[in-house]
Amino acid sequence: MLFSRISRNLRGSFNGCRWFLSIGDHNHRFLFSNEFHSRRDSTLQVMRSLIFSKGQPALHNSRYQIHHQSSPIVEDELDPFSLVADELSLLGNKLRAMVVAEVPKLASAAEYFFKMGVEGKRFRPTVLLLMATALNLPIPIAPTPIELGGTLTTDLRSRQQRIAEITEMIHVASLLHDDVLDDADTRRGIGSLNFVMGNKLAVLAGDFLLSRACVSLASLKNTEVVSLLAKVVEHLVTGETMQMTTTSDQRCSMEYYMQKTYYKTASLISNSCKAIAILAGQTAEVAVLAFEYGKNLGLAFQLIDDVLDFTGTSASLGKGSLSDIRHGIVTAPILFAMEEFPELRAIVEDGFENPANVDLALEYLGRSRGIQRTKELAVEHANLAAAAIDSLPYSDDEEVRKSRKALVDLTHRVITRTK
Amino acid sequence: MLFSRISRNLRGSFNGCRWFLSIGDHNHRFLFSNEFHSRRDSTLQVMRSLIFSKGQPALHNSRYQIHHQSSPIVEDELDPFSLVADELSLLGNKLRAMVVAEVPKLASAAEYFFKMGVEGKRFRPTVLLLMATALNLPIPIAPTPIELGGTLTTDLRSRQQRIAEITEMIHVASLLHDDVLDDADTRRGIGSLNFVMGNKLAVLAGDFLLSRACVSLASLKNTEVVSLLAKVVEHLVTGETMQMTTTSDQRCSMEYYMQKTYYKTASLISNSCKAIAILAGQTAEVAVLAFEYGKNLGLAFQLIDDVLDFTGTSASLGKGSLSDIRHGIVTAPILFAMEEFPELRAIVEDGFENPANVDLALEYLGRSRGIQRTKELAVEHANLAAAAIDSLPYSDDEEVRKSRKALVDLTHRVITRTK
Repeated sequence: MLFSRISRNLRGSFNGCRWFLSIGDHNHRFLFSNEFHSRRDSTLQVMRSLIFSKGQPALHNSRYQIHHQSSPIVEDELDPFSLVADELSLLGNKLRAMVVAEVPKLASAAEYFFKMGVEGKRFRPTVLLLMATALNLPIPIAPTPIELGGTLTTDLRSRQQRIAEITEMIHVASLLHDDVLDDADTRRGIGSLNFVMGNKLAVLAGDFLLSRACVSLASLKNTEVVSLLAKVVEHLVTGETMQMTTTSDQRCSMEYYMQKTYYKTASLISNSCKAIAILAGQTAEVAVLAFEYGKNLGLAFQLIDDVLDFTGTSASLGKGSLSDIRHGIVTAPILFAMEEFPELRAIVEDGFENPANVDLALEYLGRSRGIQRTKELAVEHANLAAAAIDSLPYSDDEEVRKSRKALVDLTHRVITRTK
Repeated sequence: MLFSRISRNLRGSFNGCRWFLSIGDHNHRFLFSNEFHSRRDSTLQVMRSLIFSKGQPALHNSRYQIHHQSSPIVEDELDPFSLVADELSLLGNKLRAMVVAEVPKLASAAEYFFKMGVEGKRFRPTVLLLMATALNLPIPIAPTPIELGGTLTTDLRSRQQRIAEITEMIHVASLLHDDVLDDADTRRGIGSLNFVMGNKLAVLAGDFLLSRACVSLASLKNTEVVSLLAKVVEHLVTGETMQMTTTSDQRCSMEYYMQKTYYKTASLISNSCKAIAILAGQTAEVAVLAFEYGKNLGLAFQLIDDVLDFTGTSASLGKGSLSDIRHGIVTAPILFAMEEFPELRAIVEDGFENPANVDLALEYLGRSRGIQRTKELAVEHANLAAAAIDSLPYSDDEEVRKSRKALVDLTHRVITRTK
């Protein structure tokens, strides 16, 4: 069991050469990049030490093999978004209906990021709808627009859809307030709400979305779920404050960075995944797996985001927006670089208001393995996310299996994305 | 029954001469100011027309009499605050414990207005604790500090105390955000949080308090109550936006003003009073009376606030802070004055950025009955609040009666206060 659990926690996919460890049937094959292997990555080492004892396989059965493949593997990936496209479209309508306010200015502020074309990737609702199906639930019956505009619908799928709506409302509320805090002027390719309608309306619209989310939550009549998602709002605030108010030691601490990243990015998706499981009446164990999927996917997502802030789509250093470092926010790539070049710390402590310090930090980063190690950490979390899905109770339902595969595919997309 | 209902809705208390209408026993005596009578106040007129038909009493029984008294009446008023002083002190400790955050800056921002000395009048918790007793509930057993710091306490009084805590957290959260929106620099005699720690921390601290309130709400495990109080947050935002974004017609509309006042001031206390009744398992009728008490008390409170903004403690026009009118906020006194002097509307529409317009408006106000009519409207709502308490089911429990009396006394205090 220990072996099985650890092996399930290891899965990686890089372009180019790969190492594979295959265990059991096709569904339990695990992939490792040769990057991992050549660095004798500590997690892989643990894995290998479990398999090999003094250079010999310690586990003598036919269920595993390690082999090397030098060409990229093309997998028959589903498009996770297309699986739930119809439901996402209904969700868009529902959200626009939910944020209608009686005061016109408040209404237009609240719906600002729910309008067609600026709805974003709808990453969270996609994950949540796939998770709802992955947890072996009945096939969704798409609610009619009448039902969507109506009062409490009691069937499970509608309730899970509502979690997706609430999650998106909390997400957008936090974007609105974050943009006020950061004085941001653009978001999703258009002017930020604070830029277009002013800070006051952006603060109020954020509060409004939070209260609408809370009213909608309450209507689910499940206090555990209310509690989970209320806690998320607290985490979002805590993460934002952690970022804003760091001591010098905290800014240079990987642990602090990961805690902040959980609060700011991973808490929302992890707790809403858990809420999906709770509404379905799943066991605590399944709820934890759903949570772990969300948490690790969220962490992987943010780690890659931090890489892209340096590289942009070009994969070359300095081609990203560099908005984090220019705002004095120290992320994983710099923290890893600092481990290799302790002298970088003095520059970080001096701050990045001086552009020369940004250039210096980029120079150190370029000479370090900071970007690479951040990607590897992202892969590690993506693996853990995929492992959580693989650990879900067996189901032979085709829809369930498709959704689970889509969730695993998402873990690959998150780490290979370039924007 | 109609007679009884209307009579219960009329109760006034002014200094100086008074008219009385006494119906039934001592507990059902109703007071009217001679101000009301001499103006042939429309409500009193309805009342009188019910009693008198063609100048003769229409109701021939000994249960009513109208008489006039020329000297002020001294009533044996309880101090409503002293009745719940011990519980308020525990509540202060509990609130300080509840807003502890793991990030130090967030913690000091969140506890800013819960510190000893700047807790404010604790008006809402006082009302809610009195309401809890007034609804014929067991005598409170003051929780020990250990219980207060512990996990879910299940007894009713603790749950009702939690409503008081949540209400105070929502109230303070809204103050923090309002002060950001208004660029306020002082609050409760000290620097506002935005002034002292900056807008960002004030926005975050407000969000944090809202999320803590929501977590605490969820732990009550009563979805009707969660829903009620989540709706309040929406109302606070709606009211604030209504105030910020008015058309010219809306600024001059008494109906718009009263709706905004309900959202901004009365919704919180009315819905939390209702929550107290719901937690006690009271009937829907009692819950409505609790709501009506809170709503009308809140409206009376705000109307007097609007008067004091013009008069201050001196009761002379122009001696208040004039902060509403200087911020372009048109309140009841000006709206009533505008009914008498329609030419005032042009000045209101021109705005109050020009100090000459403020002076002109004050001149019109001084010549009008605006202040007086606002006070009378406040008295009307205070009467309705008191009538709601009088309509509660009979109880001979001494504590219940004391608390009800204290709630009625509060309606007098609200309209006679000078600060």
